[in-house]
Amino acid sequence: MDQKNSVSPAFVLVNPQLGENIGKAARAMLNFGQQDMILVSPRDGWPNASAFPSASGADQVLMKAKLVDTTRQAIENCGLVFASTVRPRGMNKPIVTPKEAVQMMVAAHRDNVKSALLFGPERSGLENDDIILADAILTVPVNPDFGSLNLAQAVILMAYEISQALDRNLSDTNSYIEKASKKDLFGLIDHLMADLENTGFFRSVDRRDTQRRMIFNLVQNASMTVQEVQTWRGIIKSLSRGKSITG
Amino acid sequence: MDQKNSVSPAFVLVNPQLGENIGKAARAMLNFGQQDMILVSPRDGWPNASAFPSASGADQVLMKAKLVDTTRQAIENCGLVFASTVRPRGMNKPIVTPKEAVQMMVAAHRDNVKSALLFGPERSGLENDDIILADAILTVPVNPDFGSLNLAQAVILMAYEISQALDRNLSDTNSYIEKASKKDLFGLIDHLMADLENTGFFRSVDRRDTQRRMIFNLVQNASMTVQEVQTWRGIIKSLSRGKSITG
Repeated sequence: MDQKNSVSPAFVLVNPQLGENIGKAARAMLNFGQQDMILVSPRDGWPNASAFPSASGADQVLMKAKLVDTTRQAIENCGLVFASTVRPRGMNKPIVTPKEAVQMMVAAHRDNVKSALLFGPERSGLENDDIILADAILTVPVNPDFGSLNLAQAVILMAYEISQALDRNLSDTNSYIEKASKKDLFGLIDHLMADLENTGFFRSVDRRDTQRRMIFNLVQNASMTVQEVQTWRGIIKSLSRGKSITG
Repeated sequence: MDQKNSVSPAFVLVNPQLGENIGKAARAMLNFGQQDMILVSPRDGWPNASAFPSASGADQVLMKAKLVDTTRQAIENCGLVFASTVRPRGMNKPIVTPKEAVQMMVAAHRDNVKSALLFGPERSGLENDDIILADAILTVPVNPDFGSLNLAQAVILMAYEISQALDRNLSDTNSYIEKASKKDLFGLIDHLMADLENTGFFRSVDRRDTQRRMIFNLVQNASMTVQEVQTWRGIIKSLSRGKSITG
């Protein structure tokens, strides 16, 4: 089973206002492989043609979006529900960060319990009547002086955190193309050293070893490809050309 | 010192197209306390009135945004630069996740080295000539079948990850002490290029751009200190000496 795609909470948009923002939320979800969208009584009805252009190709999410009348209907098959709000509302309910919410969702998923994330209308956010349906309040720790996250941004941060929780083994993305062997590197270094000798670079005997090490280090750190080693050898040859003409 | 707010890279928008998207990026930055925006030749000029409505009150970020002509100018005071792209471009450069980039930025910040994040134009993304200026390619691990992150979303994910950095165990040992600024590096590259021109290195017009980028990349990737840049300039001078004697 592909665990990455398997933690897929319902992204429940409660009374979303603009079709454009529904489209952007769909795009944000699909950016991280999430596809389960539920729309609770969108203001302008559903389907809404203005959602599609802003989805930038995430039409599959919009086409499969489930339409319901109430938040209760949206979450009735779920066992773990988070209400996304910027400010805790003085309600007696646990408040969790995105990471904590994701941990809880992963644990729920292990026990075959479906989760849901509630997002309120763009302007006003979730009503208290929706928040009380949730197990916990999900609050992104934003700048306290400037807390307004838009809908698609709140959605993408959650979709991203879910992907991060499940992606840890896949994050080894460093790779190098046709990396040069040590032998190639030594050849380059020897070439450079020889030409530096010939052009009188190592004037001070005291500093010579330090300079050598520094040069070695630099060539090392550059993590060159075979092609790049060849380019550097061409560079050294070119720069030294005048000398060999005179010599 | 509040470490959380003190890691404040420059968010460099390279040739952004719509003022609206600049505003959204500003809002996304301020959501997580980031305020250092640099604009490289925005398509519609700057200031741009259409940026303000979409900033939703993050006007302070827009008002303080620095305007420059080139990406090089944007980053010349920085010692650690990331190029944000969805797809690695087959360039020999480390590829890092947002979390890895943040770890590097935190380490750099500890050594008083400023970082920058480059974001390309909305439609096309960063050009190769901008990417080669960076120390690493920053790639958000998105859904491989649907990779298009919009500008404000890419910005908010990075701003969010920086804000999350306090939660993590920062074991990064990379040191940025005395790391050369981009200005130092550009000086070195210009010196090398000039001498290569003089010694007839760029014989093939066709390959010239490729070679130029490769050289740029190599100097970038070597992650040099101030001292090392001086050493390389000495090396170039020494190797070229024969030429100047004959010339």
